[in-house]
Amino acid sequence: MTRLIRHDPSGGQPTYTFGGHQPVAEVKPGDVLVTTTEDCFGGAVRTVDDLPTLVCQAFNPVVGPFHVVGAEPGDTLALHFADLTPARDWGMSATFPHFGALTSTHTTATLQPPLEERVWRYDIDVEAGIVRYHARRSDFTVDLPLDPMLGTVGVAPAGGEARSTIVPDAHGGNLDTPELRAGTTVYLGVNVPGALFAFGDGHARQGQGEVCGVAVETAMRVTVAVELIKGVTTPWPRIETDDRLISIGAARPLEDAYRISQHDLVTWTVGLTGLELLDAYQLVSQAGLAAPGNVCDPNYTMHASIDKAILSGAPAYQGTHQRLRELAGSLR
Amino acid sequence: MTRLIRHDPSGGQPTYTFGGHQPVAEVKPGDVLVTTTEDCFGGAVRTVDDLPTLVCQAFNPVVGPFHVVGAEPGDTLALHFADLTPARDWGMSATFPHFGALTSTHTTATLQPPLEERVWRYDIDVEAGIVRYHARRSDFTVDLPLDPMLGTVGVAPAGGEARSTIVPDAHGGNLDTPELRAGTTVYLGVNVPGALFAFGDGHARQGQGEVCGVAVETAMRVTVAVELIKGVTTPWPRIETDDRLISIGAARPLEDAYRISQHDLVTWTVGLTGLELLDAYQLVSQAGLAAPGNVCDPNYTMHASIDKAILSGAPAYQGTHQRLRELAGSLR
Amino acid sequence: MTRLIRHDPSGGQPTYTFGGHQPVAEVKPGDVLVTTTEDCFGGAVRTVDDLPTLVCQAFNPVVGPFHVVGAEPGDTLALHFADLTPARDWGMSATFPHFGALTSTHTTATLQPPLEERVWRYDIDVEAGIVRYHARRSDFTVDLPLDPMLGTVGVAPAGGEARSTIVPDAHGGNLDTPELRAGTTVYLGVNVPGALFAFGDGHARQGQGEVCGVAVETAMRVTVAVELIKGVTTPWPRIETDDRLISIGAARPLEDAYRISQHDLVTWTVGLTGLELLDAYQLVSQAGLAAPGNVCDPNYTMHASIDKAILSGAPAYQGTHQRLRELAGSLR
Amino acid sequence: MTRLIRHDPSGGQPTYTFGGHQPVAEVKPGDVLVTTTEDCFGGAVRTVDDLPTLVCQAFNPVVGPFHVVGAEPGDTLALHFADLTPARDWGMSATFPHFGALTSTHTTATLQPPLEERVWRYDIDVEAGIVRYHARRSDFTVDLPLDPMLGTVGVAPAGGEARSTIVPDAHGGNLDTPELRAGTTVYLGVNVPGALFAFGDGHARQGQGEVCGVAVETAMRVTVAVELIKGVTTPWPRIETDDRLISIGAARPLEDAYRISQHDLVTWTVGLTGLELLDAYQLVSQAGLAAPGNVCDPNYTMHASIDKAILSGAPAYQGTHQRLRELAGSLR
Repeated sequence: MTRLIRHDPSGGQPTYTFGGHQPVAEVKPGDVLVTTTEDCFGGAVRTVDDLPTLVCQAFNPVVGPFHVVGAEPGDTLALHFADLTPARDWGMSATFPHFGALTSTHTTATLQPPLEERVWRYDIDVEAGIVRYHARRSDFTVDLPLDPMLGTVGVAPAGGEARSTIVPDAHGGNLDTPELRAGTTVYLGVNVPGALFAFGDGHARQGQGEVCGVAVETAMRVTVAVELIKGVTTPWPRIETDDRLISIGAARPLEDAYRISQHDLVTWTVGLTGLELLDAYQLVSQAGLAAPGNVCDPNYTMHASIDKAILSGAPAYQGTHQRLRELAGSLR
Repeated sequence: MTRLIRHDPSGGQPTYTFGGHQPVAEVKPGDVLVTTTEDCFGGAVRTVDDLPTLVCQAFNPVVGPFHVVGAEPGDTLALHFADLTPARDWGMSATFPHFGALTSTHTTATLQPPLEERVWRYDIDVEAGIVRYHARRSDFTVDLPLDPMLGTVGVAPAGGEARSTIVPDAHGGNLDTPELRAGTTVYLGVNVPGALFAFGDGHARQGQGEVCGVAVETAMRVTVAVELIKGVTTPWPRIETDDRLISIGAARPLEDAYRISQHDLVTWTVGLTGLELLDAYQLVSQAGLAAPGNVCDPNYTMHASIDKAILSGAPAYQGTHQRLRELAGSLR
Repeated sequence: MTRLIRHDPSGGQPTYTFGGHQPVAEVKPGDVLVTTTEDCFGGAVRTVDDLPTLVCQAFNPVVGPFHVVGAEPGDTLALHFADLTPARDWGMSATFPHFGALTSTHTTATLQPPLEERVWRYDIDVEAGIVRYHARRSDFTVDLPLDPMLGTVGVAPAGGEARSTIVPDAHGGNLDTPELRAGTTVYLGVNVPGALFAFGDGHARQGQGEVCGVAVETAMRVTVAVELIKGVTTPWPRIETDDRLISIGAARPLEDAYRISQHDLVTWTVGLTGLELLDAYQLVSQAGLAAPGNVCDPNYTMHASIDKAILSGAPAYQGTHQRLRELAGSLR
Repeated sequence: MTRLIRHDPSGGQPTYTFGGHQPVAEVKPGDVLVTTTEDCFGGAVRTVDDLPTLVCQAFNPVVGPFHVVGAEPGDTLALHFADLTPARDWGMSATFPHFGALTSTHTTATLQPPLEERVWRYDIDVEAGIVRYHARRSDFTVDLPLDPMLGTVGVAPAGGEARSTIVPDAHGGNLDTPELRAGTTVYLGVNVPGALFAFGDGHARQGQGEVCGVAVETAMRVTVAVELIKGVTTPWPRIETDDRLISIGAARPLEDAYRISQHDLVTWTVGLTGLELLDAYQLVSQAGLAAPGNVCDPNYTMHASIDKAILSGAPAYQGTHQRLRELAGSLR
């Protein structure tokens, strides 16, 4: 019997790491969690005059961590995001000093001054499905499709580590991939008892690669169904949609993120179809899609994906996505 | 008045570099060229027993170079690929020793032995629009959509260089991007008098990133309309479709290919819309798409693209794509 | 008045992260700490038949963390390693599956099988200053100079993070640079109250880049003098020898580790000499040395260094190295 | 009988590519060639007011190519640089827009403006062995050791390519490594009949990595003894000194240059000592040195080296270095 758990994050301490925190609540496999996440600025950037370096103390708060009853290292956590709806009719973006792909950074260090820090405010119209861009140095405006997603979803990392929520890695974290939309199921390997998952960093939309380093950041209403697949490991974050299987790699340089994601998709294909390894490599080579999530975070992310119709084999994770989709649908 | 030029490459010497060759023919702006290209194996790999390292002396022959009357350094060459049709009902792919993204290579050198060299033969059905995959170690087969493209299109490079047709760079070359389909216009900066363009390396289809290093290679019938934009430079290869503007970067590591392509799309956007630089950066950050072409060649490629409807400004290259599209249509 | 603190790590829990641990002891600025570190295998690999993947549960234990009285974020911790002497007459090395520079890895993922896991046992003769290599597949042996160093020295990271001791980053950690010898002073920026420094991973010697991923690993007797420089920040780890100033960068790809280290050395030069920024850039360009520490860990390291005689300016950190050197000498 | 060939490059056309040129002269194995090379600016930058982007049309002219009688693909060319002496008492350096390691570049593209273009003029005192630096924004001066080297040495590349002299790769070229001093022997694999070697780009000295992108550039008097090793291939450039064997890799990202150089040194060690592959990997891991040559050119370079005394096996290339050293000595 499905439990609906409403979690009110207000009043609690914001969380800025995966790992290193006590759980804020407990959920059971089969539960559906409803909550709200703040944007990556903790809501402190509200006008184009609110420069993030001046008004923010920390970045990318997440809601959680949640303890999943029965989760143990070696299991896989499935999070089906049944609904993601912007909680505000505005979103913020910015150029941030020495952050982003078209600037030198902390690690791609140069002697050049940073680009100007500038803030953009977008109008969000959930009904119309529109995000409206306004130029800052002219009166150019344009409507872009609303395409809500969560930038950050993860579990506590392995090895006793605690990682900043800015970082994506094998534990998930700041994946910043537009593929993480409502209607998808995220699979994450469990590293610690209880899994301790958390999420945040809602985006009204983002381009592939998040080139300036900041998406259209907004608070988000989140409905997520939780499942546990016992005794099945998942080496890197995966996403399942109704149509596609998606593997995510997080690393630098970017070709390593590509390699990880393609390697995972090839071996996943072997597992689902029984194809021999190089035969699967060949099939993914011709049928696979690939794109960057972010090319700005401490690790870059890329995803590899394939149409499920091509892999006429066993359903992934014993049909978990389909079950969670139905469970979530039954609650509406 | 449009001239239709039929070029028969048979009998000529195959060409394996951009630069370093005398032109095989002359074309004028406004001409339409019809020819046929061999596959990257020069047609020598025909069965799954034809291992490329045994049956091939060289790889990736191109047709050309063609001298464009009036082309000078500082101009832009526009090549509108009106038609790309596989010239055979079969295509070949392979794993090639120490080549591809999921193997160590010549430069990502390791002490591990190479993966097995193996060949796959695909059936191509142009009418049905299907490419059929056959596993080598089981009886698994699956139909993939036919999606013909040219892997290699370029001009003679700058600075007196001659570059292998395996290499993509600012002069074009082995871009290996599935975006280079029929119906698109490729823009290339001219480096030498006559431009000296050439093309080849037809793919019945390829995945994004061409992960194993080899697509579904096939001979291709090509119809291409040629135009020259005088006095307009193009720093990196660009593609225009009916709906999108696409910038291509070629470099290692992969993030540099990403940076080049996004930088070019941002500055192109500035030129077309009059947006201030950071305003354009912001817009591309939220509205842009990105994907790898190849992650296996001596330079990796990525493209950045944006919907033309978002940039409600002047048409790119004074409407060249639209004109060439109509010219090509008039010939059918 | 200098306190000599003897710390016996036996009996305590081994520590595998920087951050996330309570201090094991407290030291005051001016104290000298004497202790012993285990090797990266925790001493479990003793013969060539002890394969690390079979006999080890975890890797790279460190001694600590030590709380430095008065240390606060914004200060710099100085650790002068007065003595590093191997505590055993043997050391171990290994090839470790999917770890090292000449193999595919967890992130540079390929479909190739790993290299063979193999162990080498070295004889260490402290008196003679020799490390003796023995081939495993022939009777080739050769004596190499003993050159003891610590692979891992760091403080608790910023932002509430806890990082595996396998990782080098701005907080120090697994720098794996042969520059970290006896007689040098390491400078680390303090991120948390008490600094919480720790160290371990003794190497009898290692090549530049630690290409196979494992040095000549051995237990080490360590004498370290501790100082605190209040109100002075240090962005990346630095080392001072009698003759040279050394900046260390940790990142991927390797050019970013290079950029960080050179950037730090250039700006450090500006601070010590009053040279204008580009003048300092020019001087370092012609006078600077550079080399890799490791090209195998989760972040690669490189160092940049310059002869102190070239920078005829103020002594670094107000002469801390010289003071600690004298203090340590006075104890002998 | 040794022939001494004096080549006067004045009056000839400067050469800016490896490959694509007819030979300027013929040499036989055993000949000694004496000539002079211009600096990378072709001598056009003489005062601090001569900005390279204004006074230069092209960069990095080389002397050659020279046809080596009897050289064929599959052979190795040995060039022993018996003498390298600056031909002027001054040398020039510069920051060049969007070139160098601590700036964004053509390929590491950012939206930041370039650093200021600035020129430095050094005094060179060959007798005293000194290069004198003068700051541009203060009266700071300092003497650095004179350490003459050639930045660029190569042969015509394989596959019909012609490569800019700015580029280092398997054919040599713009290696920009300070290891290429007088007294060393460079080994290069021959790709075309006659080898067609050329050299230039003298540096009075440079730092490791050439971080600002430009060394202390100067014209150079060059004496080089030429030898041919028939039927022996050399995959990447190698250097032999009296004491060390050095392998050079050229690639991006920098870790690939590292991998290539270490891989070559490991397999070279196998060839000379008969050590099994992983035993050689282990030995190089502990005994090898590594450093960057350049981290600014289109390919980065790193070298790996090992003390010849450690490899108590056969002399490299059948003692070629020793023979050429004696031959050159006999001419003084």
